[in-house]
Amino acid sequence: MKKTAVIGLGIIGGSICAALTKAGYEVDGFGRSRNSVEYALKAGYIRAEGKNIADYDTVFIAVPPRATIEYLKNGKFKDGALVADICGVKEEVEKAVYEQPRNYRYVGLHPMAGKETSGIVSASPELFKGANLIITHAKQTQAEDVAEIKTYAAAMGFGRIVECTASEHDKKIALTSQLAHIVSNAYVKSPQVVGCEGFTGGSFQDMTRIAGVDEQVWTPLYAYNRANIIEELDGLISHLSEYRDALRAENDEKLSETLKEGRLIRETIKRGND
Amino acid sequence: MKKTAVIGLGIIGGSICAALTKAGYEVDGFGRSRNSVEYALKAGYIRAEGKNIADYDTVFIAVPPRATIEYLKNGKFKDGALVADICGVKEEVEKAVYEQPRNYRYVGLHPMAGKETSGIVSASPELFKGANLIITHAKQTQAEDVAEIKTYAAAMGFGRIVECTASEHDKKIALTSQLAHIVSNAYVKSPQVVGCEGFTGGSFQDMTRIAGVDEQVWTPLYAYNRANIIEELDGLISHLSEYRDALRAENDEKLSETLKEGRLIRETIKRGND
Repeated sequence: MKKTAVIGLGIIGGSICAALTKAGYEVDGFGRSRNSVEYALKAGYIRAEGKNIADYDTVFIAVPPRATIEYLKNGKFKDGALVADICGVKEEVEKAVYEQPRNYRYVGLHPMAGKETSGIVSASPELFKGANLIITHAKQTQAEDVAEIKTYAAAMGFGRIVECTASEHDKKIALTSQLAHIVSNAYVKSPQVVGCEGFTGGSFQDMTRIAGVDEQVWTPLYAYNRANIIEELDGLISHLSEYRDALRAENDEKLSETLKEGRLIRETIKRGND
Repeated sequence: MKKTAVIGLGIIGGSICAALTKAGYEVDGFGRSRNSVEYALKAGYIRAEGKNIADYDTVFIAVPPRATIEYLKNGKFKDGALVADICGVKEEVEKAVYEQPRNYRYVGLHPMAGKETSGIVSASPELFKGANLIITHAKQTQAEDVAEIKTYAAAMGFGRIVECTASEHDKKIALTSQLAHIVSNAYVKSPQVVGCEGFTGGSFQDMTRIAGVDEQVWTPLYAYNRANIIEELDGLISHLSEYRDALRAENDEKLSETLKEGRLIRETIKRGND
């Protein structure tokens, strides 16, 4: 059996370990903290603590972008090892992989799963069940490497898999994930938040669920996808201004049209995402 | 037993009927369409179709704001009947009640429950289970009328009940419900929405769940709460601009601080709303 390791025992790395172990793989884990390694061992998420990255045929890197790039540039992988990362930005990561010669095979991943909590205590063998997985392709990407990763993905329980370039990934994700976290984070800054308990329903809860982003994790993600996220923010601010301007002008017909526009778009994406 | 009627057999009116009937009340329904009345009868949500509003001791008005105001101004209620409405805006409704003499007792309600679908087909006796209910108070409000409404609310299964003035309600709701619907509606207008299926996780789904607002329902709600919703939109746009400006200036320290600000606020409201 191929020797598999996961670097990083946070919610995503921990869940990769847990899901693969549950599916019968032997997985070793590399954690930054003693606590996360102990937790992973006790929970039965890993076979053992990893000692030497060069021992493994397959390595999942599940650490923040800067550390991921460092591993991909300077990690001492086994010759021909299959290495996959799970970063939420892919162009910068891919650059680090392909800008110099390397002794490993690479496939970029982005599992569309998570929680509003973090760390291995939030990990679960079920985290990826039915979730979307994005696999990014460069011209250097080998079909057999992608096929190998898909076997792992199936074992982890992923639902739909989409494949695209790193650039396409970064544009889409700026909307579907990164912007959402900023909007949620901004949403709670209204003075009306004070004492709003009891005045909320599902829409407020949905809007603010992910507001508590860890700025240490997200600032670099945004920085690595700066142009796309600026574009999304510009677009959203300009759209929000249309409702505001219609309200201010007491132009209810315009307001109604502006709402209808969004409703019609929402109806086109309904089927694909619900 | 007091004779109870519900005017309006949409999702909220239908659910009031269904919940009260399930709790043992005899409830008659007034529906605008034949279909909704037939549905309510077949589903066992109502005892009978209502014929004359003046026959009832308690009347819940569950129709859009304009029609609610019309009922409150010109409805022929029984002398001393207890009348409650469920509109999402309360100052304008209250004005209609108190600006002229009336032969009925009044309590304003706003159930914080709903779905992204509408109509009696979406109604359920469980819709209000554990949900927040807002009761608005004016100086004319009588404690015994509120107590009577609370008995009904308990029967419908509401969780927390908060009481406040119509003005406080309208300010809070501008944030916790009305703004959320505009943000969601605006969110889907990004060009990246095209083909985003497979690139989404829970955060996108949360952000866009309520995007498909019915402009016929929401335009008047916004119009009746214009000043508050403009204030919320101004605030959100200005906050979103801070992230955008920090990104544009490549000031990651500022971006991180801006995210941290939101996280700290989110942590203060966590307990009350999760």
